[in-house]
Amino acid sequence: MKQLKNDRFLKALFRQPVDKTPVWMMRQAGRYLPEYRQVRSKAGDFMSLCKNTELACEVTLQPLERFELDAAILFSDILTIPDAMGLGLYFEEGEGPKFRKPVRSEADIEQLQVVNTAKDLSYVTDAVSMIRRELNGRVPLIGFSGSPWTLATYMIEGQSSRDFARAKTMLYTQPELMHQLLEKLTLSVIDYLNAQIRAGAQVVQIFDTWGGALEHQAYKMFSLAYMQRIVKGLITHADGRDVPVILFTKGGGHWLEVMASTGCHCLGLDWTVDIGEGKKRVGSQVSLQGNMDPAVLRADKQTIESQVQTILQSFGSGNGHIFNLGHGITPDIDPAKAKIFVDAVHRFSEG
Amino acid sequence: MKQLKNDRFLKALFRQPVDKTPVWMMRQAGRYLPEYRQVRSKAGDFMSLCKNTELACEVTLQPLERFELDAAILFSDILTIPDAMGLGLYFEEGEGPKFRKPVRSEADIEQLQVVNTAKDLSYVTDAVSMIRRELNGRVPLIGFSGSPWTLATYMIEGQSSRDFARAKTMLYTQPELMHQLLEKLTLSVIDYLNAQIRAGAQVVQIFDTWGGALEHQAYKMFSLAYMQRIVKGLITHADGRDVPVILFTKGGGHWLEVMASTGCHCLGLDWTVDIGEGKKRVGSQVSLQGNMDPAVLRADKQTIESQVQTILQSFGSGNGHIFNLGHGITPDIDPAKAKIFVDAVHRFSEG
Repeated sequence: MKQLKNDRFLKALFRQPVDKTPVWMMRQAGRYLPEYRQVRSKAGDFMSLCKNTELACEVTLQPLERFELDAAILFSDILTIPDAMGLGLYFEEGEGPKFRKPVRSEADIEQLQVVNTAKDLSYVTDAVSMIRRELNGRVPLIGFSGSPWTLATYMIEGQSSRDFARAKTMLYTQPELMHQLLEKLTLSVIDYLNAQIRAGAQVVQIFDTWGGALEHQAYKMFSLAYMQRIVKGLITHADGRDVPVILFTKGGGHWLEVMASTGCHCLGLDWTVDIGEGKKRVGSQVSLQGNMDPAVLRADKQTIESQVQTILQSFGSGNGHIFNLGHGITPDIDPAKAKIFVDAVHRFSEG
Repeated sequence: MKQLKNDRFLKALFRQPVDKTPVWMMRQAGRYLPEYRQVRSKAGDFMSLCKNTELACEVTLQPLERFELDAAILFSDILTIPDAMGLGLYFEEGEGPKFRKPVRSEADIEQLQVVNTAKDLSYVTDAVSMIRRELNGRVPLIGFSGSPWTLATYMIEGQSSRDFARAKTMLYTQPELMHQLLEKLTLSVIDYLNAQIRAGAQVVQIFDTWGGALEHQAYKMFSLAYMQRIVKGLITHADGRDVPVILFTKGGGHWLEVMASTGCHCLGLDWTVDIGEGKKRVGSQVSLQGNMDPAVLRADKQTIESQVQTILQSFGSGNGHIFNLGHGITPDIDPAKAKIFVDAVHRFSEG
């Protein structure tokens, strides 16, 4: 076990005391940074950047040069697993992710093979190893995956969707087929996240971007149950440390209690939840990560600082708060505003 | 006061005992009905249909011929107010609503005039009067409007939006300007709904489609506060009866307690909320409307019936449940499935 120069993030995840509230930003390595756009244009398309170990490492580290962030997160996409399954992930400028071969029939699902990360996704673990080496103990490194339900929605719809018509039709008309798909994805995610942990990820986050679109019982059966299996299937200890798991269901504010009971260490919150109320609801079971609306970063310094203070005050005293946005930072944000945000978290939480 | 042949819906809104649970469907007059599509093709575009009194009346009544619905809802759009303000509402096939002249600047907002329904939206009140006459006491008639925040988002974005970048930027950078816009919309909605009540609407519903996108404090200040003012500004008694108000914030499941305290009579729930838990939270303050995921209507008879039973059982005994979908019925639904749904609600709740 190598010494970490800054372990504030890990401490907060385990609800231990910290000198100031740790902070990172979802999608902190991204299009809002001019230095990212430069590397991206060198790499070509988005997936070429993800698959280029050196460049993926470079963009992962970029935001740490600008801001006093307390964690790095692997630069990659949540949809690498279905891509490795042969669906053909691609991105069109200004639009979301798309698949060339969406999954539509029973035969499509039967043909899918559980991903073997070592063979099919070595570009991800290579990047994790290199980033970890380059970080050299500066801050912890987060690995991540999409949740099985979130991966399934993209695989079935072929792209992002407003009401998930095809995915929900399968869920309600062919629940067994949906479970079969989710089963394969769950085994793949376990393999994938464990490979990231072995390669050096010190924390993992499961992004359940579309769990919040589900009816409350369906959420438990088709999204949460599989995330719980992932939590139970992960390596709990690596490199001399416990490996904490963060669960983030966007729009899942109703369900914090059941999410906390999965055995995960931390829940990500979006901005619709009052973090102080969230804390009351989950008690000492888990730490909480969040939850400023990224839209606030379009406002002036004073507004950003006042929103940061409001959230810190709502969380109140006690351990277990990791500051973050309630969703990814958007491409239109001025990096100077991100700096105001990060600095404000540290300044107002210190001492 | 004329006798209503079926007042189950009104009784449930006031939490009085009923013989079976009343049911209606958001967007029950719509594209999933072949007879609607026929009238629509006669009328031309969507707004021409809204503005044609006879045809708007005809399509309002169509679903009542097919299904044993306990309420009729005015056929119209939530965006008639901004259209009357001169923004130029139009619809492109397969896409959501759009405005020719979105509101972007301070000058744009200053120029907006509070709507005078009698002058600017008489096509709506004419339709209400005619529908009420044609209904002839069969079931109560619901009037409706978009909430000020929801109208404002469309007016600023110019169309529906994934993250409401422009509207939230205004909210955080020019909150006073946003309040100025919401103020004009609030006065317009009060005038509009009161005109509908005078013309014969026996119930009104406020559709806050995008309130759920807001940060929890911003929701209270920029959406809920204005809906509360509307509730307080409405005619409470007309035609010998109290006029109940239904508040529906999609994605507002966190906020039921504060919504209930506005003085409204009923809360609409989307499918992310367990209606039984919702009932515990709001107690006897309000009745509850909802909340099956419309996607369930793509499933078979058995699944639809079992979902209806689950929701009825979750609500449990006691008064004050109006069955509905958690959002509008979608164009791809087989009308036979809608019939299964409506009949199941009555059959399983009877006696």
